[in-house]
Amino acid sequence: MIKVSVMYPAKPGAHFDMSYYCAKHIPLVRQLLGPALLNVSVDEGIAGLTPGAPAPFFVLCHLSFESVPKFQEAFASHAAQIVGDIPNYTNSEPTVQISNVKI
Amino acid sequence: MIKVSVMYPAKPGAHFDMSYYCAKHIPLVRQLLGPALLNVSVDEGIAGLTPGAPAPFFVLCHLSFESVPKFQEAFASHAAQIVGDIPNYTNSEPTVQISNVKI
Repeated sequence: MIKVSVMYPAKPGAHFDMSYYCAKHIPLVRQLLGPALLNVSVDEGIAGLTPGAPAPFFVLCHLSFESVPKFQEAFASHAAQIVGDIPNYTNSEPTVQISNVKI
Repeated sequence: MIKVSVMYPAKPGAHFDMSYYCAKHIPLVRQLLGPALLNVSVDEGIAGLTPGAPAPFFVLCHLSFESVPKFQEAFASHAAQIVGDIPNYTNSEPTVQISNVKI
């Protein structure tokens, strides 16, 4: 299994609309990617490790797929619509990583 | 539920020993944190989003706990041993985030 992690840096001056993201964007992603998308998790940053340290990311979102080709096939035809929705909830440019699930 | 995400940046010149991490470090963390640690996932970075782009992180590790106090209580007395093991597998200083699990 692989994960696609979409991580939104909490840079000064940036904003993130969590309500829109959970109520509109994630359902849109689920609908467009269909059964190729095995699982979605959304983690909202609340803190860093040391007391008082801010969370480095607004959100860490992890999307699970059977394989990289399965992700690419599902994403390719809907990328414009998914990416085009981002300005509706944030001006933070996400860091994206594709990972192999080891544990 | 909350997650503690430990993310190791794949900076030029940095190294990461995946075998040691999975075979020694994660079992050590499980043993020390005990039942407070509800779940662990380890994702090994293989790529960025665009073709040829490198993974921004060697590893994204997510540790689940019932609450922030449960994590703090479990971690406090073992922090030195856990953090002290890091040089055995990497010289990449991890970015750490505590998150609320929303989805």
